[in-house]
Amino acid sequence: MRASHTIRGNVFYAQSGGVTAVINASACGVIETARAHPDVIGKVYAGRNGILGALHEELIDTTKETAKSIAGLRQTPAGAFGSCRYKLQSAEDNPKQYQRLLDVFKAHNIRYFFYNGGGDSQDTANKVSQYGAQIGYPLQCIGVPKTVDNDLPFTDCCPGFGSVAKYVAVSTREAALDVASMCETSTKIFVLEVMGRHAGWIAAAGALAQEKSGDAPHIILLPEVPFQKTKFLKKVQQTVNNKGYCVIVVSEGAQYKDGSFLASASASAGGKDAFGHTQLGGVAPLVAAMIHAKFGYKYHWAVADYLQRAARHIASAIDVEQAYALGKAAVEFAVEGKNAVMPTIVRISDRPYRWKIGEAKLSRVANVERKMPKQFISADGFGITAAAKRYLAPLINGEDYPSYKNGLPQYVTLKNILVKQKLPKKW
Amino acid sequence: MRASHTIRGNVFYAQSGGVTAVINASACGVIETARAHPDVIGKVYAGRNGILGALHEELIDTTKETAKSIAGLRQTPAGAFGSCRYKLQSAEDNPKQYQRLLDVFKAHNIRYFFYNGGGDSQDTANKVSQYGAQIGYPLQCIGVPKTVDNDLPFTDCCPGFGSVAKYVAVSTREAALDVASMCETSTKIFVLEVMGRHAGWIAAAGALAQEKSGDAPHIILLPEVPFQKTKFLKKVQQTVNNKGYCVIVVSEGAQYKDGSFLASASASAGGKDAFGHTQLGGVAPLVAAMIHAKFGYKYHWAVADYLQRAARHIASAIDVEQAYALGKAAVEFAVEGKNAVMPTIVRISDRPYRWKIGEAKLSRVANVERKMPKQFISADGFGITAAAKRYLAPLINGEDYPSYKNGLPQYVTLKNILVKQKLPKKW
Repeated sequence: MRASHTIRGNVFYAQSGGVTAVINASACGVIETARAHPDVIGKVYAGRNGILGALHEELIDTTKETAKSIAGLRQTPAGAFGSCRYKLQSAEDNPKQYQRLLDVFKAHNIRYFFYNGGGDSQDTANKVSQYGAQIGYPLQCIGVPKTVDNDLPFTDCCPGFGSVAKYVAVSTREAALDVASMCETSTKIFVLEVMGRHAGWIAAAGALAQEKSGDAPHIILLPEVPFQKTKFLKKVQQTVNNKGYCVIVVSEGAQYKDGSFLASASASAGGKDAFGHTQLGGVAPLVAAMIHAKFGYKYHWAVADYLQRAARHIASAIDVEQAYALGKAAVEFAVEGKNAVMPTIVRISDRPYRWKIGEAKLSRVANVERKMPKQFISADGFGITAAAKRYLAPLINGEDYPSYKNGLPQYVTLKNILVKQKLPKKW
Repeated sequence: MRASHTIRGNVFYAQSGGVTAVINASACGVIETARAHPDVIGKVYAGRNGILGALHEELIDTTKETAKSIAGLRQTPAGAFGSCRYKLQSAEDNPKQYQRLLDVFKAHNIRYFFYNGGGDSQDTANKVSQYGAQIGYPLQCIGVPKTVDNDLPFTDCCPGFGSVAKYVAVSTREAALDVASMCETSTKIFVLEVMGRHAGWIAAAGALAQEKSGDAPHIILLPEVPFQKTKFLKKVQQTVNNKGYCVIVVSEGAQYKDGSFLASASASAGGKDAFGHTQLGGVAPLVAAMIHAKFGYKYHWAVADYLQRAARHIASAIDVEQAYALGKAAVEFAVEGKNAVMPTIVRISDRPYRWKIGEAKLSRVANVERKMPKQFISADGFGITAAAKRYLAPLINGEDYPSYKNGLPQYVTLKNILVKQKLPKKW
């Protein structure tokens, strides 16, 4: 249904920030739904490398892709159009960027901007919406949530998280069986490093590997709980004494009381990203070496890094479904005439798991980080509570296997044909 | 069919060395087949923690497990009875060990010894066979091949390898899509470290991620090819210039011309294992930092470690089938009266892939490492040839998903009830 105040126009869709196993499922939801609303929506243009695609007038014409290719996005990880780490400044500090963006939108009759990203991106989408209103250009900006970190407010969960959570839970269960097999004469310590810069949601998901109390992982190091070396080493030793081995899941964002990252001390850590965030990594070898230095236990460690967020082969069916539904809802919001909002996931019940689409204002979403609540963290700080498990468990439910050929998943590669440029390159 | 010279007796089955995603599928093949030959075979005892289970007289009575549990082994990774890194000395150097082993075998009427492991284990099985003959105790020792390293001779491939190969190929394809999405403004380098101490089979399997020439991985660092820093960095730069990013798969065993491991220079490397092998790990961060120091490219790296060899969730169907078939064949060999042999995989054709069970003498298998042949390594040393791909491709074919409950794979836990001990603990 077309709202009376909508204007038929084209869509600009962009992927932003770190990609996920299901961000393309959201793209699929946006494009398929847009195609179903030809009365309101003309073409869907996707930004080549996210918002840069708008600034550089590099617009991918998704109408050149077959329905089969677009459907294939649902089972393809990472960003099919390219993503970017690039944050617009405020319109006051850098009005030229906004002017350019709107010039490109005008030149291509773009009336709808769907920004598929995390907190930074929702902030940008909000600013673009404000700028459009300011200059009197009719533009509807709708956020499509995405982040493996699960740290956006107002939505019960974030697309991308459920699949990483499933990857981490499955991998932890598997690796724990391995070390349990080896511990008598060999490896007694296994440390798995997972993502999550400031929020421990991903590390917490490792606990889903437990079937009963005392199962691996025995220790989870969350960014929300200041790291205490002595207490940690004592727990490791107790676990090895009781179980014969100890499995640890550590968040890349694990930190000391003063807020400094454990990973900062690691020689393997790199520089800073475009947002000024420190590039983390290498906390697993550090933690393993710390244990070895104290007790001499033989150890193994793994750093999952991109493998975890790209692991479409073990994606959560719920996550895929929600990612698609949020892309679809974003288009429906636009068709209904909404602006500066983001569709969200609203949980109706845990068991059976039921959810629906909700709505949040972009102005409220922007740049708010949702950490693990205190009641989700166990008393000793090394695990999660039953409440946390009730929250997490449904998000990894169901398998949504991609199709395979010759033993490998068949991920689509789009043609990504650019629209003819209309504006000068320089701005 | 029972050979005339076989004696009805019990089985001792032991898992040895690093476990795999499919070693339990071999156990399943052994136990199910043994149960089908009650005329020859009594009970299957499994060693608790491998050969140590015999030395310590810790024999797990598999007859206490239900048919359903045993069938569940086929889809359960790691070693269900525990494995160990423990190598018997020669009978000349330490005859007591052999005497103890045979005392335990005699006490429990064990007439069949199935040793499920790599080269070291086949060597042990051979020595035990010789010792049995020497003291006139009728004992048939049959090896069951297993190693993710794929470095056993005489068999076309080794159970465990195909599943790791599939994990590495799938993960490389997925992570490559991720970095391709990010490279415009962020990560340009992704390094995945995989197992393979002396043989590059696992790293080579990364190349299966390529659909066409030029696809990721762009560089594979094999232990067989001495690492040349300047040549490597030049190739990285060329790749980033041409593709915008560069994906590297590096073997933990990558080494310099003088045979020293790159990983030895890494602060993350640990000590030595029970066989005196250096514990490797941490070559990915080292390689990534090397690139960063030269070009400043933003990088990510992953170390798959146990995740790769425990990844039953993405096991190769061919690998599972062969692991089971080799366990089955080992029992059939025993029933036919064979001794000091190992069933092998014989390849009949590449396309369509056809294979059958063959046979190798343990005396010839023991302690021979099979590296990648020269004709499998590309001219520049950074990749593999079409011949290598023809060899590798069938080994990752087919998916054999475990069953799931609540979003997690259902791996079996056995009761592992020990047989009553009959001998003194001290020996």
